[in-house]
Amino acid sequence: MKLYIKEDIKNIREIKPVIHHITNFVVMNDCANITLALGALPVMAHALEEVEEMTSLSQALNLNIGTLTDEWVKAMIKAGKKANELNIPVVFDPVGAGATRFRTQCAVDILNEVNISIVKGNQAEIASLCGVKSEVKGVEAGKIEADMNDVVKNFAKKTKSVVVATGKDDYISDGKRTCMLEGKGSRMLSTITGSGCMLSSIISAFSCVQKDHFLASIEGLLFFEKASEYASKKSLLPASFKVALLDEIYRMNGTETEEWT
Amino acid sequence: MKLYIKEDIKNIREIKPVIHHITNFVVMNDCANITLALGALPVMAHALEEVEEMTSLSQALNLNIGTLTDEWVKAMIKAGKKANELNIPVVFDPVGAGATRFRTQCAVDILNEVNISIVKGNQAEIASLCGVKSEVKGVEAGKIEADMNDVVKNFAKKTKSVVVATGKDDYISDGKRTCMLEGKGSRMLSTITGSGCMLSSIISAFSCVQKDHFLASIEGLLFFEKASEYASKKSLLPASFKVALLDEIYRMNGTETEEWT
Amino acid sequence: MKLYIKEDIKNIREIKPVIHHITNFVVMNDCANITLALGALPVMAHALEEVEEMTSLSQALNLNIGTLTDEWVKAMIKAGKKANELNIPVVFDPVGAGATRFRTQCAVDILNEVNISIVKGNQAEIASLCGVKSEVKGVEAGKIEADMNDVVKNFAKKTKSVVVATGKDDYISDGKRTCMLEGKGSRMLSTITGSGCMLSSIISAFSCVQKDHFLASIEGLLFFEKASEYASKKSLLPASFKVALLDEIYRMNGTETEEWT
Repeated sequence: MKLYIKEDIKNIREIKPVIHHITNFVVMNDCANITLALGALPVMAHALEEVEEMTSLSQALNLNIGTLTDEWVKAMIKAGKKANELNIPVVFDPVGAGATRFRTQCAVDILNEVNISIVKGNQAEIASLCGVKSEVKGVEAGKIEADMNDVVKNFAKKTKSVVVATGKDDYISDGKRTCMLEGKGSRMLSTITGSGCMLSSIISAFSCVQKDHFLASIEGLLFFEKASEYASKKSLLPASFKVALLDEIYRMNGTETEEWT
Repeated sequence: MKLYIKEDIKNIREIKPVIHHITNFVVMNDCANITLALGALPVMAHALEEVEEMTSLSQALNLNIGTLTDEWVKAMIKAGKKANELNIPVVFDPVGAGATRFRTQCAVDILNEVNISIVKGNQAEIASLCGVKSEVKGVEAGKIEADMNDVVKNFAKKTKSVVVATGKDDYISDGKRTCMLEGKGSRMLSTITGSGCMLSSIISAFSCVQKDHFLASIEGLLFFEKASEYASKKSLLPASFKVALLDEIYRMNGTETEEWT
Repeated sequence: MKLYIKEDIKNIREIKPVIHHITNFVVMNDCANITLALGALPVMAHALEEVEEMTSLSQALNLNIGTLTDEWVKAMIKAGKKANELNIPVVFDPVGAGATRFRTQCAVDILNEVNISIVKGNQAEIASLCGVKSEVKGVEAGKIEADMNDVVKNFAKKTKSVVVATGKDDYISDGKRTCMLEGKGSRMLSTITGSGCMLSSIISAFSCVQKDHFLASIEGLLFFEKASEYASKKSLLPASFKVALLDEIYRMNGTETEEWT
């Protein structure tokens, strides 16, 4: 598989795409900072009165239900429909889907109402949206009783989206192409909150410059996970690891992942 | 007094209890990260539609009124009642009680509607909820015109909760047992926002594994304050101190406090 | 121009003014921490039921529309009117004004309803509020088709506020006095989110002790930008730069800017 990480990073840093985030309170600061570190421009706006206009000014829309309410989901759907109208990529992170009925239902509503370009969740979230039995602890993934290759492939076909399911191994499918990235990423990523949400921001930025969203997802994943590997060489303690992770995203130029591809 | 910090930390890291937080916007990220650093799993959810279900999936509930609105207080009470029903410990941090009438009233409402396991506030917040005159500057404590030993003891009797009042010295009581921890904790803790809220997260996690909540509170306090001591040896500047504080919580194994106990 | 940075910092650290923030979700933690690092006390409260009382307990009010909704703007106006009544300085940061009609309208409403002491925005935000054509990318400034000296001077006259427009160069005017600070501040400030919002917190604190708000604004700017210069000597990577920036604000005593004044 030919990837274009170096070229796409270069393009992100030249074009500086605006990524409209409607995301959760826990990670807003981290998502804004990692978007800037990558070279794109974050904007956070959730008022019903302005989401459509803000999406129109953006090159990608990132939706995340981590601390959802009914009102916020309405804003996500409104922004999502506008993005569809304008052919702007929409990345959706169904945080905690499967944990509560409300959360699962909101995720399903968003998937029904908006054409999502890329759905990015952990394996349990993706599995639960496919109706596969899985264990969820809070917003963390537990055991899953299915082959994730099948899960992402079927879910991609059903939703007509690229599906990314992260975990110890990562699975990506657009329904036709399916791949598994084995054991990439530092285990330190699980010691900080919001690593999945930050990955969604990264993939959102890649989706602006790499029109093949299957490739954009893999590129974002590899870039982020390589940054986590470098960061874990700087620190194996979580808060200083997180500082290093953001620093590495800024420092890296896309050649670092070549050994993996 | 016999404490079980080492055993309880070990249990937290094995069981990985889920701590459902309904907390303020300022500290959500820090509270999630310190919960992870300790070895537990944070989840933040405040929608009325899902708080009961999320609490049911959790091993402790942490309520904090730092940036309260009427709607959020309703969610806290709803989650709190569910926690009571299921016998899940509830830790309550009445941030800024005494500062405004609305804030004091909401704290009183929560205390009336929910059986709180542990109330953790700074000395001014606890004093003001006891009707003792005290100075509050923003959400910071000022001078208090009473013996804090009496204040925490009486408040513990009245609320049937363990009461923790933090400050230069810390006071803890369950109504029968009262103790004062003298001058523990680095003075650097007052240079960062959310140190009290992070302590509440730590105590919430301890309350999952240590059923004697008087001991759980003391253990959480000592563990957190020892971490602050180590962190202050790494840095006496606030932002790098905060990074070190989270790192130390992750690194420590509970033997570090033995010299204090 | 005679400045009093050293004296004013000393006064902030002695008086510890409370800065009531009604600000956006992205930067709440950073704004609270930088306020503490400077030596003032932050408080965040937005419920309509308590904003007036919280403002009454404060020495400055900081309004910021970064993640605005109708409800939050109402709270800002209510708090602002109370601040006016009590003669407490109000600092307003019109984040993203010019990006969407809703955002611009809310900024105009706040300016119409509240007597603002200091308006602090980036050049594009200030220009757009003056009706000058400017490019906005998300909440970042683009090209502006006017002389910023005129823009800030005219806007200061119109609003009877001190106006601060930041960018590569910074422009400050109270309608009578106008000055430009050339190329101060590290370019690293543009690699992190919320640097402008943090500056607003700093200026809010200065406005409590320096009654000439034209001077207070310049002092806050110079202090913040000098801190960014020191921080960039510690790190040229964004997350560790941010840690260093907050550390420097805490460490500096106001003599550091003497070479600039």
